[in-house]
Amino acid sequence: MKPLNVGLIGLGTVGSGVFQVLTRNQAEIRRRAGRGIALAAVNRRNLEQARAIVGDQVPVVADPMAIVNDPSIDIVVELIGGTTLARELVLAAIANGKHVVTANKALLAVHGTEIFAAASAQGVMVAFEAAVAGGIPIIKTVREGLTANRIAWLAGIINGTTNFILSEMRDKGLDFATVLAEAQRLGYAEADPTFDIEGVDAAHKATILSAIAFGVPVQFDKAHVEGITQLQAADIRYAEQLGYRIKLLGISKRRDDVGGIELRVHPTLVPAKRLIANVEGAMNAVVVNGDAVGTTLYYGKGAGSEPTASAVVADLVDIVRLATADPDHRVPHLAFQPDALSDTPILPIDQVVTAFYLRLRVADQTGVLARITAILAEHDISIDAVLQRESADGEKQTDLIILTHDTVEGRMRQALVQMQALPTVLTPIVSLRKEELN
Amino acid sequence: MKPLNVGLIGLGTVGSGVFQVLTRNQAEIRRRAGRGIALAAVNRRNLEQARAIVGDQVPVVADPMAIVNDPSIDIVVELIGGTTLARELVLAAIANGKHVVTANKALLAVHGTEIFAAASAQGVMVAFEAAVAGGIPIIKTVREGLTANRIAWLAGIINGTTNFILSEMRDKGLDFATVLAEAQRLGYAEADPTFDIEGVDAAHKATILSAIAFGVPVQFDKAHVEGITQLQAADIRYAEQLGYRIKLLGISKRRDDVGGIELRVHPTLVPAKRLIANVEGAMNAVVVNGDAVGTTLYYGKGAGSEPTASAVVADLVDIVRLATADPDHRVPHLAFQPDALSDTPILPIDQVVTAFYLRLRVADQTGVLARITAILAEHDISIDAVLQRESADGEKQTDLIILTHDTVEGRMRQALVQMQALPTVLTPIVSLRKEELN
Repeated sequence: MKPLNVGLIGLGTVGSGVFQVLTRNQAEIRRRAGRGIALAAVNRRNLEQARAIVGDQVPVVADPMAIVNDPSIDIVVELIGGTTLARELVLAAIANGKHVVTANKALLAVHGTEIFAAASAQGVMVAFEAAVAGGIPIIKTVREGLTANRIAWLAGIINGTTNFILSEMRDKGLDFATVLAEAQRLGYAEADPTFDIEGVDAAHKATILSAIAFGVPVQFDKAHVEGITQLQAADIRYAEQLGYRIKLLGISKRRDDVGGIELRVHPTLVPAKRLIANVEGAMNAVVVNGDAVGTTLYYGKGAGSEPTASAVVADLVDIVRLATADPDHRVPHLAFQPDALSDTPILPIDQVVTAFYLRLRVADQTGVLARITAILAEHDISIDAVLQRESADGEKQTDLIILTHDTVEGRMRQALVQMQALPTVLTPIVSLRKEELN
Repeated sequence: MKPLNVGLIGLGTVGSGVFQVLTRNQAEIRRRAGRGIALAAVNRRNLEQARAIVGDQVPVVADPMAIVNDPSIDIVVELIGGTTLARELVLAAIANGKHVVTANKALLAVHGTEIFAAASAQGVMVAFEAAVAGGIPIIKTVREGLTANRIAWLAGIINGTTNFILSEMRDKGLDFATVLAEAQRLGYAEADPTFDIEGVDAAHKATILSAIAFGVPVQFDKAHVEGITQLQAADIRYAEQLGYRIKLLGISKRRDDVGGIELRVHPTLVPAKRLIANVEGAMNAVVVNGDAVGTTLYYGKGAGSEPTASAVVADLVDIVRLATADPDHRVPHLAFQPDALSDTPILPIDQVVTAFYLRLRVADQTGVLARITAILAEHDISIDAVLQRESADGEKQTDLIILTHDTVEGRMRQALVQMQALPTVLTPIVSLRKEELN
């Protein structure tokens, strides 16, 4: 059987990795796939730079549309990123009856519904393992490996940059700005790191995971997104003393009690003994809890040239395997059959349920704790632990740390307003969410 | 499209779990698979006990052959274990043109070649996700998710009973026999725990993983197998002091330098900071290193009713998806196309390369360390660390702990014979293998 022809749009970090892996492991991949995968053309604006990477064996083109419109090409791999040109190219490729592989989480989180519908109508596949957690086959795991389960929740470290920054802040006791500058110098953070540090990248990925876990459309606009820019070294230290670590997690949870789904990205306290709390540096990990399997975890490199290429090429092999199969028998894009997606709503943040970590800078005088705990009690929020640092000699202020049990966020917000209004609460209260993940 | 009919042979712990999961998550599974899965018949010798589990909705039969020979059944699920009757049933089902799902690692590790050949000849699938690491989709991950990679090595905690025992030994400082008795009382270890504690169960699973990672036939008889029965509390303690934990690992490694594959199960020192070193209790985890993806880890419950059922049902859905597809385009049983399997030999243990932990009880006198290190140097074994416990007052003996760098095992065995012969070495030397797994 003749090999499938692949056209590669975008020959940057990941694109080069795809070329390397396909070339180096050609024999190994063919032994597995049973059919060859040929790189028919690659696209990069600068042809000279493209040549320097792929040599003379592969045709290079400057115009990505040349790949999309090439009738000899069976599969288009989109690796240019962004949501404008990438969307046009992907939709054009689909319209031309080509299968698509993409690593573009922003594109799918925002335009996924349109793209998957177009693909279903054309009977082609859009594969996107590389869009979430790089080389970790988490899409395949949730869509296929855990298919017997009613997924209860998932939570992941799905942005390497922020995990690197948080690891460094904890290890070295440094504050956010210092570590960010260092991360930029080392190339772990981009010159404009906004999408990473504000949690947007993680939210794109969490949106995709949420859809395939719960059978709902991708709804990035409904995700609650907080980054790590406000995080202070003091809270990392206090969390540690209480047996927790702070990680930026993308979390999605089924809430049968209210018929909704939580979808949120924010810094989260996690018990230090959990494996995911021990995922350091730029590594990624996703925890998935299903009703049959219980809690499982998947760990690996979430970015980088060849780890991401590993996922892109796995998608290519899947397409090679399923290209000749009946479209109705392929794995559905969002894990559930298109006509079986549910309209279960993504809950507003006020309805989310979590435990909380609170840090209050309070006047060191009698009755302060009583007043604060009374406010929490009035809002039906129960306390799990309190840590009060002894004031230094002569100091008239002290840090009061409170861990609560699970509560509805709206209730906590009301309580926070009241606590903040107390004259004995001297600075803005720090509140962070806490998850047990067991 | 009419549902596929499943016949379930064996309605014990896992079989009951499969019934529960299929029943409870019927709607969820159908939303994903796009086609129903119907339980057409279940087999258990005692019909009354079977009825108590499945009620009146599912036909129960006492003779497993009735399921294998039932023309209305499309897929046979074999969950009785063992390698005699199970082999007959599986081969008969295949001969009758039925797909097979099995959780039977012993059967596949020993008779896999025969079974997979029969299945290929008949154009049916034999799926076995549940045979290794219970609910963790490790077979799918290695066969499909990491398909772009040349796998370099894998190492797994793939026996929950022994990991539970080792966790307890470390936590409580108890010796093996005490913890085993406790594990038996709690139901974590069977009345006859031989297969678990001698490493045989882990070796069955490692054999299967080795085959799908490296594209070689299953060769259980070539696996080197050591259990944990000889492990002493003292070594767990010393390992801890040196920054290591001891885990029973199934390891398989590609050795391009000698054109072979290592396949071995033994207690192993692993750096305490690795995630896998922190997998506690009866949990399982597998680390896989591929040339593109780097090091990845997969964690979850390795046994139990519903976690194992999660894997069995995932296999059923895969079969539902691929049943109508061209057999040439299914995922090959052993990850590689049958005609692309390699005859790369499994290496004898003498040719395995690892680092070592040695504990020697020596006379506390001048020159002992010099003599021992000289023997190691003569065998070209270099030393990574030495820990010498100070003798208690008046004691004339001391424990000498040596960590070596990587060496060929045959060389270490020769060195051990010479060291053991020294009059100053007072008791049998303890030697354990050490892996960095990074």
